[in-house]
Amino acid sequence: MSIFLELIPVSEAEEILRKIAPLMGEEAVALSEAYDRVLFRPAAAAEDIPGFTRSVVDGYAVRAADTVGAGEALPAMLTITGRVGMGDGDAGQVAPGECRYVPTGAVIPEGADAVAMIEYAEESGDDLLVYRAVAPGENLTLRGDDFRNGDVIFPAGRRLSPRDLGVLGALGITTVPVCRRPVTGIISTGNELISPDQTPGPGEIRDVNTYLCYGYAQTRGTIPRVYGIIPDERGPLEKAIRQAVAECDLVCISGGSSKGERDMCAAILADLGTVHAHGIALAPGKPTIIGTIDNVPVLGLPGHPASAYVVMVALADVLIAAMTGCEVTRITVPARCAAPVPSTRGREDYVRVRLEGRDAYPLFGKSGLTNTLIESSGLLRVPDGREGYEKGAEVEVILW
Amino acid sequence: MSIFLELIPVSEAEEILRKIAPLMGEEAVALSEAYDRVLFRPAAAAEDIPGFTRSVVDGYAVRAADTVGAGEALPAMLTITGRVGMGDGDAGQVAPGECRYVPTGAVIPEGADAVAMIEYAEESGDDLLVYRAVAPGENLTLRGDDFRNGDVIFPAGRRLSPRDLGVLGALGITTVPVCRRPVTGIISTGNELISPDQTPGPGEIRDVNTYLCYGYAQTRGTIPRVYGIIPDERGPLEKAIRQAVAECDLVCISGGSSKGERDMCAAILADLGTVHAHGIALAPGKPTIIGTIDNVPVLGLPGHPASAYVVMVALADVLIAAMTGCEVTRITVPARCAAPVPSTRGREDYVRVRLEGRDAYPLFGKSGLTNTLIESSGLLRVPDGREGYEKGAEVEVILW
Repeated sequence: MSIFLELIPVSEAEEILRKIAPLMGEEAVALSEAYDRVLFRPAAAAEDIPGFTRSVVDGYAVRAADTVGAGEALPAMLTITGRVGMGDGDAGQVAPGECRYVPTGAVIPEGADAVAMIEYAEESGDDLLVYRAVAPGENLTLRGDDFRNGDVIFPAGRRLSPRDLGVLGALGITTVPVCRRPVTGIISTGNELISPDQTPGPGEIRDVNTYLCYGYAQTRGTIPRVYGIIPDERGPLEKAIRQAVAECDLVCISGGSSKGERDMCAAILADLGTVHAHGIALAPGKPTIIGTIDNVPVLGLPGHPASAYVVMVALADVLIAAMTGCEVTRITVPARCAAPVPSTRGREDYVRVRLEGRDAYPLFGKSGLTNTLIESSGLLRVPDGREGYEKGAEVEVILW
Repeated sequence: MSIFLELIPVSEAEEILRKIAPLMGEEAVALSEAYDRVLFRPAAAAEDIPGFTRSVVDGYAVRAADTVGAGEALPAMLTITGRVGMGDGDAGQVAPGECRYVPTGAVIPEGADAVAMIEYAEESGDDLLVYRAVAPGENLTLRGDDFRNGDVIFPAGRRLSPRDLGVLGALGITTVPVCRRPVTGIISTGNELISPDQTPGPGEIRDVNTYLCYGYAQTRGTIPRVYGIIPDERGPLEKAIRQAVAECDLVCISGGSSKGERDMCAAILADLGTVHAHGIALAPGKPTIIGTIDNVPVLGLPGHPASAYVVMVALADVLIAAMTGCEVTRITVPARCAAPVPSTRGREDYVRVRLEGRDAYPLFGKSGLTNTLIESSGLLRVPDGREGYEKGAEVEVILW
């Protein structure tokens, strides 16, 4: 009496998602807006960086050979012929027996091949006493040491970190070619649902999934667009789906935790487009639907919030990454099962776990409860070839 | 010939930062804007959630006692007296020998104490054959199972995740009391610096720190405000600092990698306000300055981008967390040193490392280079009581 005619493995669902994912186009954003965006094309250095040999300390540009043998007892004596200022383009020359003061970051004069730190030197009129020998190249950053002209610094598909922004600045890339952010349409269905700003009457509960999907869509670099709570009726649901598909790049419909609702959602998808999968060997998340309408991917998520969220992490992540040309980024930490985690061979389980130090405590909440979503640190994935984990097993936890 | 009169330990710098941190006030934001914001006050449940006992499956609400002994060979036979719809407030009653159809999430009729799944039941006219006994409470979510009236669900200081947004929706909290986002003023100093949209001439380099700080400020939930590149001259720098302090909640000044520049920045801070620390036993980051002007914290960061970023992670994180009433959140993963990491006892070292599986490779770039910022996975902290780590040592890496 199985509800689902066919459960497909998660790997097959992922393959479908990558196949139906429409690649977002390119847009240009200012560097200040580029954080967490995905590079659309590689970023390369258009010149050597730095463009000149610099001092990395405050000190005196010297010819290293002039300091050979210098020490506390017998300092080398050089003639100070000038001082280089920050940003000076012409640092002059250092001939044998000469030196010039250079602050950190300044250009090294021609002829000099090292810098003696001020900590080990002493001015005496126009003379400098150097108390420590320096080797050729010491305290220098050479032209091109950071990045070389033509080097590809970031590949396409890179999700830009704050540090990347600084380096893009160094490269002179102030208009950044990034992948357009997908618009995620969010539909919640269920006759029992009311808006969170209302007080539930008998039999009613507040809609959790709209804001759950909203926050999820934001964290994944997409733009959430809310279509509200739609009753479980063919007409309104079909209308909402048509509108969302026309306005969005992907659509997440949550709800339909009862068989009738699920069937209606799948039927609408089949009528308006194509159902690629209905029923996935994934727990929670078995009743998930994958469809497309006019090439717009549509995910039918379970109604239970915790299940819906797990499906987004397990599957929508794959879809969104493919749409934006990047990899799914998951932070995992090694942990030890603090209790047995049973599972059924032939399906992939995502168990919410709470980390306490190295110990991962599985949280087996009743279906439909949301408290495990906020008490857990992340997910323990049990691959479909395993019958769970024993207490003490070494595992990897995917952090939320 | 030490430049710094006094280096204070990192722990003391942290204490200073927590003491000078002005706590941001409260503001109310819509739930859709609350992702990654910090709760200003605790969020509690104002009623039991769910507000009624619900079915977690599609099935038939029964009295468990009526199914005792039921099995494939000898099913229990009950009379179907109705069907409960989703959102129905009145689910009716189930008397002994009776049952009612309930979809997932619907109200359980009075008198019923369990639900028999449709998978193990069969309708025959008005009769239902139940092929498997159910225990009292089976397949039910009880009123208050998720959250109980009065329970504090989130403490003040919670940084809101996407999952938290869903749960706030469940609690009916659609206007969220959050901590106001600090405005971070960003000043880059240096005569050698040019804007990233310009081409460097001899002796010039593009400003990296503005966008590095910009991205950093964004990731820490603050609002970056850029004051541009200021030359190393007392007048313009003082003017920029005055303006930034008047308009921002904290100010980060980067640059001043040469002694003269550092001294000028510290002198301006001392004239306009108070210098709490100048010189910290931290590498990189020794020349860091901590000051306040009109109760606005001002951080003087090193000019080298990698050093500046490390100081932001090591110290500005502490300041911003204290200003927003939350904890510093760091994701750490265990790793093994793939090479020796030397350090000096008496200072705290933050070494950039690249993770390859479990192995952490220290990246010892020359000072002033930025490539280690994008090639590293995070930081290995060497506490001031240690002389580094040997190859193979078990360590924790702070992910960027």
